[in-house]
Amino acid sequence: MSQIRHALSVKRADDFAQWYQEVISAADMAEESGVRGCMVIKPWGYGIWERIQRLLDNRIKATGHDNAYFPLLIPLRNFEREAEHVEGFAKEMAVVTHHRLIADGKGGLIPDPEAKLEEPLVIRPTSETIIGDAMARWVQSWRDLPLKLNQWANVMRWEMRTRMFLRTSEFLWQEGHTAHETAGEAKEHTLRMLEVYRACAEEDLALPVIAGEKPENERFPGAVETWSIEAMMQDGKALQAGTSHYLGTNFAQASGIRFQDREGGQQLAHTTSWGVSTRMIGGVIMVHGDDDGLKVPPAIAPWQVVIVPMLREDEGDAALVEYCERLRASLASEDALREPVRVLLDTKPGKAAAKRWDWVRKGAPLIVEVGQRDMAEGKVSLLRRDALWAENGKPAFQAPSLDEAAQAIPGMLETIQASMLASARDVRDARISRGVTALPELQAAFADGVDNPGWLEVQWAKPTGQALEQVVDQLKALKLTLRNVPIDAEPADGVCIFTGEAAVERVLVARAY
Amino acid sequence: MSQIRHALSVKRADDFAQWYQEVISAADMAEESGVRGCMVIKPWGYGIWERIQRLLDNRIKATGHDNAYFPLLIPLRNFEREAEHVEGFAKEMAVVTHHRLIADGKGGLIPDPEAKLEEPLVIRPTSETIIGDAMARWVQSWRDLPLKLNQWANVMRWEMRTRMFLRTSEFLWQEGHTAHETAGEAKEHTLRMLEVYRACAEEDLALPVIAGEKPENERFPGAVETWSIEAMMQDGKALQAGTSHYLGTNFAQASGIRFQDREGGQQLAHTTSWGVSTRMIGGVIMVHGDDDGLKVPPAIAPWQVVIVPMLREDEGDAALVEYCERLRASLASEDALREPVRVLLDTKPGKAAAKRWDWVRKGAPLIVEVGQRDMAEGKVSLLRRDALWAENGKPAFQAPSLDEAAQAIPGMLETIQASMLASARDVRDARISRGVTALPELQAAFADGVDNPGWLEVQWAKPTGQALEQVVDQLKALKLTLRNVPIDAEPADGVCIFTGEAAVERVLVARAY
Repeated sequence: MSQIRHALSVKRADDFAQWYQEVISAADMAEESGVRGCMVIKPWGYGIWERIQRLLDNRIKATGHDNAYFPLLIPLRNFEREAEHVEGFAKEMAVVTHHRLIADGKGGLIPDPEAKLEEPLVIRPTSETIIGDAMARWVQSWRDLPLKLNQWANVMRWEMRTRMFLRTSEFLWQEGHTAHETAGEAKEHTLRMLEVYRACAEEDLALPVIAGEKPENERFPGAVETWSIEAMMQDGKALQAGTSHYLGTNFAQASGIRFQDREGGQQLAHTTSWGVSTRMIGGVIMVHGDDDGLKVPPAIAPWQVVIVPMLREDEGDAALVEYCERLRASLASEDALREPVRVLLDTKPGKAAAKRWDWVRKGAPLIVEVGQRDMAEGKVSLLRRDALWAENGKPAFQAPSLDEAAQAIPGMLETIQASMLASARDVRDARISRGVTALPELQAAFADGVDNPGWLEVQWAKPTGQALEQVVDQLKALKLTLRNVPIDAEPADGVCIFTGEAAVERVLVARAY
Repeated sequence: MSQIRHALSVKRADDFAQWYQEVISAADMAEESGVRGCMVIKPWGYGIWERIQRLLDNRIKATGHDNAYFPLLIPLRNFEREAEHVEGFAKEMAVVTHHRLIADGKGGLIPDPEAKLEEPLVIRPTSETIIGDAMARWVQSWRDLPLKLNQWANVMRWEMRTRMFLRTSEFLWQEGHTAHETAGEAKEHTLRMLEVYRACAEEDLALPVIAGEKPENERFPGAVETWSIEAMMQDGKALQAGTSHYLGTNFAQASGIRFQDREGGQQLAHTTSWGVSTRMIGGVIMVHGDDDGLKVPPAIAPWQVVIVPMLREDEGDAALVEYCERLRASLASEDALREPVRVLLDTKPGKAAAKRWDWVRKGAPLIVEVGQRDMAEGKVSLLRRDALWAENGKPAFQAPSLDEAAQAIPGMLETIQASMLASARDVRDARISRGVTALPELQAAFADGVDNPGWLEVQWAKPTGQALEQVVDQLKALKLTLRNVPIDAEPADGVCIFTGEAAVERVLVARAY
């Protein structure tokens, strides 16, 4: 066994960034593609994304949205008319200028100068403008509202510094876009979708999040309100895991989304947009991973149970595989009371112990090993990835009978899911401080050379404009950012930590990805 | 009722191409986007694609493939090293040359000359080369084989003449890519995936298809063998609905996919690729549509049953909706013996008769109308989209009790699915001629001004090179193409219709999309 690699070479406590990269590679989730800033999402990573998609898509459909698909390429003029939008994030974008390659006469290829586009096209960084164009065609009357659309798509933002899953030039996401009759209805919908994201993050990904409104400086360009869910990583930093925007009539104005209201007048629609992306997978890694690799919450695990027969390449193997297949078939079968378990019987060539550690690094929630002795005793050896080590320093195998295992596993998966959320919440809650009221105290907590203490929830006067910029600069010096104003925070009852004025609310301050 | 539009303005028999466009618009499936050659897939069209995706994805996973995701943008050098590939279809492609937009100082935007890419990037027209690069990294030993991958993605080919679903610059598809130890295994896999496509087309889309090998001139550039499934549209033309390629070692050579074989030697892998796209939806329209609009086979219908209460905007409406809801809930419930029915209770504002024709044009398989009288009698009015008209020229409503309807509908959906396939097969089979043995006869059948008679299956000597080109030119003059050599065709027993030599096989000749 000493030959078999199990732990990672880097521990979280020693170099969190390096550990993150190593988990992705050790769990075989993704890799650099050779195309600048773009990654290849390998089957285990993509399988997790497929599960997130399925579960979130169900939630999005249950709130009355239809999926649709809009063009990848957006004409330049769409960005021109939305000046505020362009001045925001949207400058670094991939621009298509030609529609043909030709031989350069030296064995190479070049864009054909004869095939230059009259108007360059941009690969969508987000689809507000092109979906706005469609909405303007589709919405005539109040009867056409609300219009609730969602799109699953790839988008591209030319990022200078990339990091797999967290920030890549191309990424996969869903973007919801809705149009409503009134501001009130649109705002209500913005919050409903924020709640959908909270439920998906917590119930499906076992990521505890704090939902709240972003301060003015962190708003999506063109939005009237931006809301987010924020998750705490094990290094104490925040990850914005999803955003929901109330866009007012800004995009409706730019695209011309007008409707005849109930009184016969013409009105601009109130629109919303909201998105989550493959970035969430980075959150799963940094919240649930440990020094042995990834841990995938059962709800989003491509395989929830992996059965590894300890094959000896002899005549006993067939009976052993058959014994394992009984468990597999029993778990995979439909049942009136539960979904089929996603279970893999791993009979690929290779040593069972090596496979065990492969599946530990990938984070399969339950690993079942079965050797000849287990079979002789009618048992299996069962390992919970979230409770891997016994007190004696050995893997904490349980030894139920095959029938007991078949009975118990569906419930164990639910237990693991709940326990992963609960322990992530405990870890997070222990690192949110609410008692800091003075700026010097905040500065000391985040001084150079001090370990990141986590998040602070502080009272503030909600400054705007220049006053807000000053706060942002003060925080920037400490590598801190304003995250959000939690919906569930207590009302303010003190003074603003930044200005000394009477506070109006509480805001989260943290280092962030 | 005379005010309510039901039929389309164009009949299939009068102008098939115009009818096709009108169905897409009347069924609210898609529309032009304003971006050259790109369409917006609207919810009803996208819902059909989602169903196709779900069903085909299950089939692809059941044959041992994992989904993964590869970059949208491909470096120019990938195309340069695959010269044969470039000389083929791959010249018209969208080329990204800049990564930033800046203000032009005149209120507009331009690609920033300072942000020109050192090497242009191409939006993938297909992913053989970039997936080949990944396979070269992932495959070291025979133990890593077979490697079976699939990707759901958007791709782009700069098409000059576009037609919604059939040929658009951007389209959605799945592309499978596999690597194998031996030619035999790779060829077998090529055919297995062809069979998966046949089963999906026939069982899920109710599209009868003929599976066979493409002649040399119709091969995918770089392929050793190309196989296709071909469907006959109602105008007698062929639509290639899916292709599966055995690529030999050509792409493995270009990408360097080498492995250590069982004897310790180095070998090139044998690869395959195969794809189907949103084009299949064009096939569904042209096979199943009629002069009243689209007909969607139940297996891929976003809503299989639509219940329309005849609301009168009075106090009786609540009870009527409740009555309808009983049927909806009963159909939507899970059952040990069947999947839940996808059923919509359509309570949107609007007249019931107008809604009926909306759903007829969209092709919902079953439409259930319920008025106060139906409710008083404990009944519903049930309309099968595939048997819309009674002999008296009126809609062929059935009037089962609510409970009978709940009982019967799951079975009716199966009946409709089977019946749509059977009647499409009858229509097609009646238009495939096998008796034409002389070229003048073929020329007469497809002479100018003669209605397209359908397909001919003719015997030929399978010419190659220049001789094949001559055949292709002869056919081109008649607007005909070689489709495929059907797997199930009878052996040849005559002479080649083109050359007079002894025939070696039978080939399908047809006009095509």
